[in-house]
Amino acid sequence: MTTATKDMLATYPADLGGVDREKLTECIDACVACAQACTACADACLSEGMVGELTKCIRTNMDCADVCDTTASVLSRHTGYDANVTRAVLQACATTCKACADECGSHAGTHEHCRICAEACRNCERACNELIASLG
Amino acid sequence: MTTATKDMLATYPADLGGVDREKLTECIDACVACAQACTACADACLSEGMVGELTKCIRTNMDCADVCDTTASVLSRHTGYDANVTRAVLQACATTCKACADECGSHAGTHEHCRICAEACRNCERACNELIASLG
Amino acid sequence: MTTATKDMLATYPADLGGVDREKLTECIDACVACAQACTACADACLSEGMVGELTKCIRTNMDCADVCDTTASVLSRHTGYDANVTRAVLQACATTCKACADECGSHAGTHEHCRICAEACRNCERACNELIASLG
Amino acid sequence: MTTATKDMLATYPADLGGVDREKLTECIDACVACAQACTACADACLSEGMVGELTKCIRTNMDCADVCDTTASVLSRHTGYDANVTRAVLQACATTCKACADECGSHAGTHEHCRICAEACRNCERACNELIASLG
Repeated sequence: MTTATKDMLATYPADLGGVDREKLTECIDACVACAQACTACADACLSEGMVGELTKCIRTNMDCADVCDTTASVLSRHTGYDANVTRAVLQACATTCKACADECGSHAGTHEHCRICAEACRNCERACNELIASLG
Repeated sequence: MTTATKDMLATYPADLGGVDREKLTECIDACVACAQACTACADACLSEGMVGELTKCIRTNMDCADVCDTTASVLSRHTGYDANVTRAVLQACATTCKACADECGSHAGTHEHCRICAEACRNCERACNELIASLG
Repeated sequence: MTTATKDMLATYPADLGGVDREKLTECIDACVACAQACTACADACLSEGMVGELTKCIRTNMDCADVCDTTASVLSRHTGYDANVTRAVLQACATTCKACADECGSHAGTHEHCRICAEACRNCERACNELIASLG
Repeated sequence: MTTATKDMLATYPADLGGVDREKLTECIDACVACAQACTACADACLSEGMVGELTKCIRTNMDCADVCDTTASVLSRHTGYDANVTRAVLQACATTCKACADECGSHAGTHEHCRICAEACRNCERACNELIASLG
């Protein structure tokens, strides 16, 4: 799959204020991919015979999908940039991705969907933390 | 309008872990109302003749709508509760609501939609902060 | 709870094109309330001992929450109105609310959260259909 | 960017009911990419000097982002599949993508972000229509 994230960023008609474009692009794409993986993992968990043991996993997946979707949207906007909002949203996203990576990770040996989803969450957590660090 | 927030909370079949139900209900409803007000305010700003002076307001409204929607969803889930996630999401919501309240507030004398929206944002910021405080 | 839906609509600075304001306000508020009820019902179902028998209900609740959220947002915008988009989104919302009302309704005798949620879905389905009819 | 859409689909533990996996994967990824492009295009339009002439474009972008996000989520769930819901949501998505492709397309000669976004919308419209057709 190819998103237009990088190309859209290149056409933004105003100043981007010195943001690290590569880290920003990576973070948006990581959020977008993580949201999809979490939505699919919640649903896959629902269809496991042992669904009763996966309820915390399903819930965390749903939170993570919502938070990643919102973070991708906030990061895709540059007009009227507010560093406090960006930082707080990225922090919430890193925290939620870590929680979901830990939870899905604990089922990774049993459920392949949890293993793949945990990887998407770790990747998104890392991308958020790197973007936060680059914001100075 | 009447949401079923309070009634749904009362029917939750497991332990709610000592959360302040009144503050939780208030916060969910404040998020839901703030998201709607921000979406409507962004659109009203778009139709003002002076839209060029309201671009930061429109952007902040869109962020605030997204963050409030996500916060309402996270707070409406109790299964597999994770205090770190709840706190980080509430913090991001309070920060975003404050930013939007400040921005809309600066246009409140000129645009009635900004005045009403700023009020919804202030109310949501307060509800988030009170819920954070009650989490201990 | 009080949303600012009606007040925000009253401050819209341009022409609303003859829409039935009362039906529009009712529909937005019904979507907003239904989305919250469905998110809470999905979570309540997750914490039932018989979660294995509620997986279709949880999934339908998640779809309905997403569709109602989107519908509330589309209906809260009036600038650059497109009747085809509004109608298609309302149709999808009515269809999804009916599906969720039927599914939750089938558990209404056993689970109070499903009974309340089915009511919110029926109310939203009706509001969508009435708004569609009023669009002419 | 690489989503885990295809890999997650491959790990779904229950029956997928004869859906065309390739068309489903393409449609989910097209929705996800279109939502990001539309959010970015709305924001780029906001920063154009001629924003007053782009208000319909901004609004349509916001609708399209919301509808594509919801469609991606609905399509990422397979448990308790309901053909009526899937079809209605896909129809709303195709209609909204067409509206946004037309609107952004009309500015494609002036604004490169509108050109790229129109392409993402056309791609998503096509993927929705092909998936609808494959549902039989």
